[in-house]
Amino acid sequence: MKPLGLIDRVDLPVDKIPTRWYNVIPDLPRLPEEYIDNSTGKKVTREWLERLFVKSMAAQETSLERWITIPEPVREAYKLWRPTPLIRAVALERELGTPAQIWFKYEATSPSGSHKLNSALAQAYYAKRDGHTRLVTDTGAGQWGSALAIACQIFGLDLTVFMVRASFHNKPYRRNLMETYGAEVRPSPGDTTEYGRKLLAEYPDHPGSEATAVSEALECVDADEGTRFAVGAFSNHCLLHHSVIGLELKEQLRMIGRTPDYLIASVGCGSNLSGFASPFVEDKLNGADITILAAEPEACAPLTYGEYRLDWADSNGRGPGVHTYTLGHEFVPPPIHAGGLRYHGCAPIVGLMRHEGLLDAEAYGQVSVFDAGTTFAKLQGYLPAPETSHAIRAVIDKALECKRTGREATIVFNYSGHGLLDLGAYGRYNDGLLRDVEKEDFVAPTPSMVEGLKA
Amino acid sequence: MKPLGLIDRVDLPVDKIPTRWYNVIPDLPRLPEEYIDNSTGKKVTREWLERLFVKSMAAQETSLERWITIPEPVREAYKLWRPTPLIRAVALERELGTPAQIWFKYEATSPSGSHKLNSALAQAYYAKRDGHTRLVTDTGAGQWGSALAIACQIFGLDLTVFMVRASFHNKPYRRNLMETYGAEVRPSPGDTTEYGRKLLAEYPDHPGSEATAVSEALECVDADEGTRFAVGAFSNHCLLHHSVIGLELKEQLRMIGRTPDYLIASVGCGSNLSGFASPFVEDKLNGADITILAAEPEACAPLTYGEYRLDWADSNGRGPGVHTYTLGHEFVPPPIHAGGLRYHGCAPIVGLMRHEGLLDAEAYGQVSVFDAGTTFAKLQGYLPAPETSHAIRAVIDKALECKRTGREATIVFNYSGHGLLDLGAYGRYNDGLLRDVEKEDFVAPTPSMVEGLKA
Repeated sequence: MKPLGLIDRVDLPVDKIPTRWYNVIPDLPRLPEEYIDNSTGKKVTREWLERLFVKSMAAQETSLERWITIPEPVREAYKLWRPTPLIRAVALERELGTPAQIWFKYEATSPSGSHKLNSALAQAYYAKRDGHTRLVTDTGAGQWGSALAIACQIFGLDLTVFMVRASFHNKPYRRNLMETYGAEVRPSPGDTTEYGRKLLAEYPDHPGSEATAVSEALECVDADEGTRFAVGAFSNHCLLHHSVIGLELKEQLRMIGRTPDYLIASVGCGSNLSGFASPFVEDKLNGADITILAAEPEACAPLTYGEYRLDWADSNGRGPGVHTYTLGHEFVPPPIHAGGLRYHGCAPIVGLMRHEGLLDAEAYGQVSVFDAGTTFAKLQGYLPAPETSHAIRAVIDKALECKRTGREATIVFNYSGHGLLDLGAYGRYNDGLLRDVEKEDFVAPTPSMVEGLKA
Repeated sequence: MKPLGLIDRVDLPVDKIPTRWYNVIPDLPRLPEEYIDNSTGKKVTREWLERLFVKSMAAQETSLERWITIPEPVREAYKLWRPTPLIRAVALERELGTPAQIWFKYEATSPSGSHKLNSALAQAYYAKRDGHTRLVTDTGAGQWGSALAIACQIFGLDLTVFMVRASFHNKPYRRNLMETYGAEVRPSPGDTTEYGRKLLAEYPDHPGSEATAVSEALECVDADEGTRFAVGAFSNHCLLHHSVIGLELKEQLRMIGRTPDYLIASVGCGSNLSGFASPFVEDKLNGADITILAAEPEACAPLTYGEYRLDWADSNGRGPGVHTYTLGHEFVPPPIHAGGLRYHGCAPIVGLMRHEGLLDAEAYGQVSVFDAGTTFAKLQGYLPAPETSHAIRAVIDKALECKRTGREATIVFNYSGHGLLDLGAYGRYNDGLLRDVEKEDFVAPTPSMVEGLKA
């Protein structure tokens, strides 16, 4: 039999885990707009940030330092799974008949199954060091909550997770996982907060959303001096921590002497895209011909269909007002299987990158996304999360474009997590029960979104 | 904050994936007994084996070569996740206060989530090369079926999996996973075989077992000339393929200058224990003081409570008769959450190793096993499969023994797979609903087993 032609891989030794995080803000063409306190309409103060976040996180949130040293305990915990391999999808290239090379940064070996642990470990470490006793957070599909549960257990902190009510009841596995790591998990909306009780009184069957979960989590922070909010995607400091992905990737590409033409990642808020691609922004600004592409779900695509404006980060305005691409904080995304991508806005840094023309965006329907994920699994053996499959959809489309044009492009994507806890969705897809969302599925879409939606 | 003290790890570069499998048979004190054709009572012939197995597998089954070259396409596919790291559980050591060092070979990064892919890839490769078109197999919890589904997809073969009926209905995730990789999955007993129809006529609610699934799979082989049986644990050739685990481990221990005092692995049939420990058998026979310990479930513990004798490999005698430790082919294990360990006998090589005094065995109740697995997850971040947690239970007990005696032993165990598809069981454990099996739970235990069971 001839050589299999399945994969190539580029590994890094464990001492090549980055020693510093990279902060893209000082390299952007302009600074992000400052956060607004919605109760006063004025810029938030440092005190306001420190009441919300762990003290060191408040400092990182507004830092203009390009490089920030990774504390040794965090770097040691990264050794649980880092460095992650860079893998070439040789079988997919052959199947597509593309002259492009397709590489992916494989983040799925993390104990929590996705890239989210990069920031969870950092936030838990600083919370402990700064003397806090408990973190509280929101989670949608459960990827972030699981990662933070592991991190809080490792560093010795209590954790309360507000989980979108629909997922809490329909996806018990992620809840079981968080509880196994010692986290307290509450459905959102729920009866432990004033805001949750108010929502349930109005709509007893309210399915919840990331935005309601954030609002309830923030109410918990207000109620307890020792508690701070940990954020899974939105904030500058969270995106900072994920830069280890892109920094390792740069080193690995250097080892094989390649520069990327496309850097592709799925976007809910933008934590995996930013961590993966931000270390290449300076190269792009210096003239490198790199397309950074955000792959969004058609059902919730702020970068594709939203507007760049001031909006709330949560659903009741307790959190900051921020400038970013948004579908509106009142937007309730229809249920799709990439639960990690159901958020009305994107991270301010990612919004700014788009606003400054550093970022392209495209939206994909979930059936075509599962087509891509399943194709990838069959050819390459790895089962991607539905979130990750958005990036794979985009990669396949770009590789086929290269086939038409004959371009020998280097396409690199971020394999942000595995799909082993999404097998219910794969089952529905296998049985032909999955469909794309339609206009009727939206409770309150913004006008720009309705216009953008394919018929 | 002081250093975290979480883990150490020893990685191997990708070119250190072994080039040869190690066959322990020529190094054992005596050869295994030959297989018996139950229909004639005579030794099976090569033709009989070749009608059952892929031709090359029939040859490996009886091979006395110590080293067998790994075909390059199989070795390339191993690069999907191999070499696997050797990791030191520093946090667990500290928590236990043991002077022992605890290391584990981390097999959970395989795309199928366990070590099973080591043999699945080999069997699928040879099936394709030898001109067969379809494999058929049995699976209990689904670990083996998933691995073989990936392997058959990669090498271009059809696959039919008979899945224990109780798992087929209660654990749809594993079924979804196999179907995503293109396998046809049938419940056992089911109505597609004569034997399945017979069982269902007698017991319409028959939950099935590994043994019924094997019998139905073998009936499929008889019915189609292009089909062969792929075996997930029992056979010599399957155990051979898993020797890559132990060979890598030997190299990694050499790198840190340590020799093992304990090698511990869970045992259902023995594929992970044999692959992990067999490369150390020669050292042990040459005088090295190594304890090889098989960790079994109390509910189904052939090495602990069974007898070494001739018995059937399946439930109706279509498969071979073999000499090994067995609880009797008519034994139906009660439902426990380590579904991968529910088999009445163990692999002939493992049985022989026990019979020759090369192997110790201990049995553990599932509540204490989940205690151990949860403790490990909280301290080290990795969530083990319930099967793997049997080994962790044994490791903790041995490490505490070392604490009492002051022995600075090197304890190494095989982390055979992750528990992300077992979160239902973790949820039951978290909610206090898990219990150990009791004598009343057994349908037909052997006398030696009843006597051995703790009250």
